[in-house]
Amino acid sequence: MNRQHGYLALTARVIIAGTLLVGMVTHAWADPLPSWNATGPKESIVAFVEAVTDPRSADFFPPAERIAVFDNDGTLWAEQPLYFQAMFIFERIAALAPQHPEWQDQEPFASVLRGDTQGALAGGEKALLEMAMATHAGMTSEQFGDIVTDWLATAKHPTTGRRYTEMVYQPMLELLSYLRANGFKTFIVSGGGIAFMRPWTERIYGIPPEQVIGSSIKSKYELRDGKPVIARLPELNFIDDKDGKPIGIYQHIGRHPIMAFGNSDGDFQMLEWITAGNGLRFAGFVHHTDAKREWAYDRESHIGRLSRGLDEGPGRGWSIVDMKNDWNVVFPYELTPAD
Amino acid sequence: MNRQHGYLALTARVIIAGTLLVGMVTHAWADPLPSWNATGPKESIVAFVEAVTDPRSADFFPPAERIAVFDNDGTLWAEQPLYFQAMFIFERIAALAPQHPEWQDQEPFASVLRGDTQGALAGGEKALLEMAMATHAGMTSEQFGDIVTDWLATAKHPTTGRRYTEMVYQPMLELLSYLRANGFKTFIVSGGGIAFMRPWTERIYGIPPEQVIGSSIKSKYELRDGKPVIARLPELNFIDDKDGKPIGIYQHIGRHPIMAFGNSDGDFQMLEWITAGNGLRFAGFVHHTDAKREWAYDRESHIGRLSRGLDEGPGRGWSIVDMKNDWNVVFPYELTPAD
Repeated sequence: MNRQHGYLALTARVIIAGTLLVGMVTHAWADPLPSWNATGPKESIVAFVEAVTDPRSADFFPPAERIAVFDNDGTLWAEQPLYFQAMFIFERIAALAPQHPEWQDQEPFASVLRGDTQGALAGGEKALLEMAMATHAGMTSEQFGDIVTDWLATAKHPTTGRRYTEMVYQPMLELLSYLRANGFKTFIVSGGGIAFMRPWTERIYGIPPEQVIGSSIKSKYELRDGKPVIARLPELNFIDDKDGKPIGIYQHIGRHPIMAFGNSDGDFQMLEWITAGNGLRFAGFVHHTDAKREWAYDRESHIGRLSRGLDEGPGRGWSIVDMKNDWNVVFPYELTPAD
Repeated sequence: MNRQHGYLALTARVIIAGTLLVGMVTHAWADPLPSWNATGPKESIVAFVEAVTDPRSADFFPPAERIAVFDNDGTLWAEQPLYFQAMFIFERIAALAPQHPEWQDQEPFASVLRGDTQGALAGGEKALLEMAMATHAGMTSEQFGDIVTDWLATAKHPTTGRRYTEMVYQPMLELLSYLRANGFKTFIVSGGGIAFMRPWTERIYGIPPEQVIGSSIKSKYELRDGKPVIARLPELNFIDDKDGKPIGIYQHIGRHPIMAFGNSDGDFQMLEWITAGNGLRFAGFVHHTDAKREWAYDRESHIGRLSRGLDEGPGRGWSIVDMKNDWNVVFPYELTPAD
């Protein structure tokens, strides 16, 4: 080998190595959670992740056991003034009304078509279930996925005017990435519909469909015009809420997560279950305290009610994230100039 | 920098780089499926994997969509003379008998305790269900996992004398590794019990519990002595067989796999479903043709019956793996001297 050529090549290598080193150091020092203020919850999260990923730590878990579960509504994206899936239901009823002339005189549909969603919801769980089935069942699995995707591409939130998928929490996006960079597998465990979430969670949260757990209706495998399809049936299969969350985790994951985040008493059992496991655990509630940037609600809210969690969480060592004080950014669009 | 020192360092780097290069070339040329003979099925598998992983190919799929699903009994491990989970049931009944004196006179338990498994199975599905519930329900999720783990550590196959987890198919272990090395996510979709498989699939197949789909019983979240547990209930939840396999895939994965392997008509709908998707697909049946190294059975067998698959599979472009001719090794223990 030519000596001078060798020296040049060596210089190039040293420069590349040096750049890599600088890159690594920068990476190690860069804050992975910039939208979190340097307050208690952030410190707890970082301390937890460092402890469970350090092979010399007594709290170490191998990557396979680093399972983190997240509620969706109110934890990863907003849920006011109504669950976004309820908005989907109302808008689908309006879109399907021409095919259902009988809905004009039939509750709860008639109320929805008059624009009276409160009236429609007055029928309670039975009415909600009826509306859910009318909009979620009958079609094939692929058709339903397309309907959700098309709706999200055009629907706008009633007060912010934003796309629903823009109303995800920037600090939680950072947390999901931070966990995955540390070998965690991130799952959604939501009371919302599993098939309503799966078409977009990979694009928005980096969580693939097979890591989404939610409520579901029954389905049936059949041939339609000789083509195999999965037909969605108007019958409840599973409610992934409250006691259902640990059960959903058992059915889908089959091992004990070591981290869980929720925002309402519907997540209480999930946090209780994950913190009952052996070894270090992290459990947290997002507390909606920011009426200006988001919404402020807890004990008295019909949506995302958080009461028992506030009473018992701190005593159990669970973190309560005060959205107003602990997050310096709520929605990603705060980071970019208004369009 | 000292010139000579630089030259030595450079030489060292060249040697290291050269070694790496040789390593890479060796790796690229090493056969990832050495237990498969160079016959049709192996050629089809390799051609499929190369096509879906080549970004310049029209058949390319990004890694996230490279989902491969495998039946377990008769596809990844043996299933003769009885499903291994049935052996577990019989041996658990014997172990639990002292706590159930009434079983001495009560069918199907009495037959099991006399060693007459045929007699016990004569009661059909009802008897089998009763035995399954007596051995799979009542305890917590963690207790059941421990029971399975302890049983597998000591139980021996009635004719080979081997541990059941030794009776996995070496060519399929190679296939699972080959797929994962090519960015695939590998899942089990089995008619067997989900909770019976999950304690050991990661260690034996490299398939983590969250990628195991199977039949299940219902469960309940409750506090026992103040400690949260998942209690297993004596009630069927889901049968992951035949039509149930595409449904199980929809519930757990939520997207269309591109590859599926089974061995019986219970897998027909799974193969039919995955090959109905858009783009290149691979579907295969393991055909048990080797009475000497394993077992030979198909159309007339009560266990792992394969008839419609043999009739219709080839016409649908599905591969039929002839165990006798296509595999040069069946079980991993053939590769090591007898102990």
